[in-house]
Amino acid sequence: MARNTQVSADHHAPSVTRMLAELVAQHPSRGWSDAVDHAAHRTFLNWLGCAVGAAQHESVNAALAAVRMLQPAPQASVLGRTEKVDMASAALLNGISSHTFDFDDTHLKTIIHPAGPVASALLALAEHQGSSGRALIDALVLGIDVSCRIGNAMYPDHYDRGWHITGSTGSVGAAAGCARLLGLNVDQTAMALGIAASQPIGMREQFGSMTKPFHPGGAARAGLMSALLAQQGFTASPRALEAPRGMMQTISTKNDWSEITSELGERFEIAFNTFKPFACGIVVHPGIDGCAQLRAQGVRPEHIASLEIKVHSLVLELCGKKEPTDGLQAKFSIYHGCAAGLTFGCAGEDEFSDAVVTRADMVALRRKVVATVDDSIDEAAADITAVMQDGSRLHVRVEHAIGSLQNPMTDAQLEAKFHGLSDAVIGAARTKDLIQAAWRLGDAPHVQALIALSHS
Amino acid sequence: MARNTQVSADHHAPSVTRMLAELVAQHPSRGWSDAVDHAAHRTFLNWLGCAVGAAQHESVNAALAAVRMLQPAPQASVLGRTEKVDMASAALLNGISSHTFDFDDTHLKTIIHPAGPVASALLALAEHQGSSGRALIDALVLGIDVSCRIGNAMYPDHYDRGWHITGSTGSVGAAAGCARLLGLNVDQTAMALGIAASQPIGMREQFGSMTKPFHPGGAARAGLMSALLAQQGFTASPRALEAPRGMMQTISTKNDWSEITSELGERFEIAFNTFKPFACGIVVHPGIDGCAQLRAQGVRPEHIASLEIKVHSLVLELCGKKEPTDGLQAKFSIYHGCAAGLTFGCAGEDEFSDAVVTRADMVALRRKVVATVDDSIDEAAADITAVMQDGSRLHVRVEHAIGSLQNPMTDAQLEAKFHGLSDAVIGAARTKDLIQAAWRLGDAPHVQALIALSHS
Repeated sequence: MARNTQVSADHHAPSVTRMLAELVAQHPSRGWSDAVDHAAHRTFLNWLGCAVGAAQHESVNAALAAVRMLQPAPQASVLGRTEKVDMASAALLNGISSHTFDFDDTHLKTIIHPAGPVASALLALAEHQGSSGRALIDALVLGIDVSCRIGNAMYPDHYDRGWHITGSTGSVGAAAGCARLLGLNVDQTAMALGIAASQPIGMREQFGSMTKPFHPGGAARAGLMSALLAQQGFTASPRALEAPRGMMQTISTKNDWSEITSELGERFEIAFNTFKPFACGIVVHPGIDGCAQLRAQGVRPEHIASLEIKVHSLVLELCGKKEPTDGLQAKFSIYHGCAAGLTFGCAGEDEFSDAVVTRADMVALRRKVVATVDDSIDEAAADITAVMQDGSRLHVRVEHAIGSLQNPMTDAQLEAKFHGLSDAVIGAARTKDLIQAAWRLGDAPHVQALIALSHS
Repeated sequence: MARNTQVSADHHAPSVTRMLAELVAQHPSRGWSDAVDHAAHRTFLNWLGCAVGAAQHESVNAALAAVRMLQPAPQASVLGRTEKVDMASAALLNGISSHTFDFDDTHLKTIIHPAGPVASALLALAEHQGSSGRALIDALVLGIDVSCRIGNAMYPDHYDRGWHITGSTGSVGAAAGCARLLGLNVDQTAMALGIAASQPIGMREQFGSMTKPFHPGGAARAGLMSALLAQQGFTASPRALEAPRGMMQTISTKNDWSEITSELGERFEIAFNTFKPFACGIVVHPGIDGCAQLRAQGVRPEHIASLEIKVHSLVLELCGKKEPTDGLQAKFSIYHGCAAGLTFGCAGEDEFSDAVVTRADMVALRRKVVATVDDSIDEAAADITAVMQDGSRLHVRVEHAIGSLQNPMTDAQLEAKFHGLSDAVIGAARTKDLIQAAWRLGDAPHVQALIALSHS
């Protein structure tokens, strides 16, 4: 669970992104002295000589062989569409799309969304090389184990510092999965992890923009490319993760190595992966769950005088938007979450659409929600009382919302969620077949049949 | 100049890179419980639904349009070779090759090697879209200004922490240059910088492996892709660089914003770019320079009884390898540097070849070098005394080695260096034409003529 710690924050920094953008976009051509222009030519000339000079070096040979693996495009599918692209781009795109609705999986101990980087890289590679479903599932377990163990070691300091931990650990996880799927040996695999260790991706400041889902996509592509490079003999430090100036000590002040070393090969972090039933911030989930329970007991919006919800202060800090004006804002509103739970009994992507969020009845119901802070209540819990028009009261206490480790979604609920996402894109019948193909993937001789079903 | 500061280092970390590589490469297929295997299928299924569900989202449309820009390959050239690849891969490869010999340019205030990320991205994009030479030079000045100003703001804390500052600032510099070359407006350019801000690349632990030159290459590719994404409408935080959880505050404890804001558009950091005359660590340069001066005065190896050199302690700390056994080690040896300077009067890639490093006369001469620490001498200086067989002494003091800001290489010396790198790859005649094409690039109607000359 995220906390509110902030490391060495400067909230008054000038708008340097904007200032630099203005310089780059607007500065006149050759708007500097001849000396500067000559310096530019010297810089270019010297760079050119260095590049030409090293053109036959083994590092260039290895990297060229690796990017040659991407050609000729098209090699791999973009899920839910008809386009095929090179496999590195497919890894990028499926990583972006799978995280776009913020509706993917969550490894709660680290709040890593582990599938985005790892599965996106693996499916693209598996499609291109014709891997078996079993090989993909094995690589998924191991790749996610690598990224989540690294996350366990660094969390929470690393996240507090500003890193989007999904992308920063995801490159290495994706590299691990792809190394496995490529059949690399231990030395090559260590190089794949090492190359990926130089490519942690993602800052939390990007939350709310498209660059947030870019993070798992970029990590998927970086991991896949790292494994392809390692396969071609490209080298990295064999201590790239743990060395004093390796990845982990560079990007985190906390590194508990025992999180990586203990029960390695015995405990698998994928077993602690959870799935969001609701398409919004996780601290809103207990509120939605409780209101859906009230609805199941017969409570309807028109019965309500007020809806009192007591939550931990963090819930209002992260998701306290009282009057959201669009779907994106509503995902960070405990008020909308409660209104959706009571009105629909669910809160998928549809219930966070702009159209639903701005509906008059939803606006009215949100205004009846009274949220108060009670820090004796856990961050993952909620205490809800519905006060009826007739003055009667109905109370619900949610200790572990649906989707938590203690109260996981059932397989049937996961399927229903899948239909909610996929039916509109590829149709209900095809979605049903795709779900069955996914359940049976571990026994599938290849992944192509599943991929064929995923096209729009 | 690098210092020896180390932030929160743990030198006794277990070999987790190796341990994870062994797990990934060696763990048996399905070597876990059925519950874990089912968790893997749930993870995959849920990820698949999320990706299919978002398949038509605007973020996926934008990213797909951007990677479509890479096709059909081949689009751009690998310098010094005959192969063409897609432009993102060309940016990667030329970034790798230009830094492979550690012989490229140095912005001394930050020890950024600025051309690698920026020029590599620009030339690939310019070739594909047929840009003018002027447009490339303009974009080079502005892109390097962005990466070096960001570096100025964060240096030295960011470097001390473990980041290879060339790659970490290079993604944003390359994005800035490519945004300029694509003609993006201010808003789009800010998005390009913002997308790149999530992709700082490179840890110092990789020094000595191929992943070190991968850093400018990866940064070039990341920056080019960020600009292409921004052109297609992909979004990032407009404060992605400076916000508390943006790039700069996440990866550096020091951020002096005035380094970015002061004299912006008036002072250009490319004017402070320097070029290495010697293919080795920069603290060895004064020693080589001084010994080359002794040689110019008629001193020969066979005259020498001993060669006494006084240097700052940092020189021996970074480059104190007394008995290097190959070329890579010799690059970090003040002893070999002095021997090469006295023997050859220069120290290019050839003088650091394994063959030269292991020659008996070089081994013998290295053993005559007596290096002592004198911290009253600047890190960038050296005090050298040649003690002859006849007992006479010759003294040289180098305050600013050739290649420093105070004593820059002349254009003719830069050309000679270029020939030393390029003649063996594309021939001396073609190299001469290529040099002329580079000097005249700012007036060239397009970059194709230069690129045609660069092929092997």
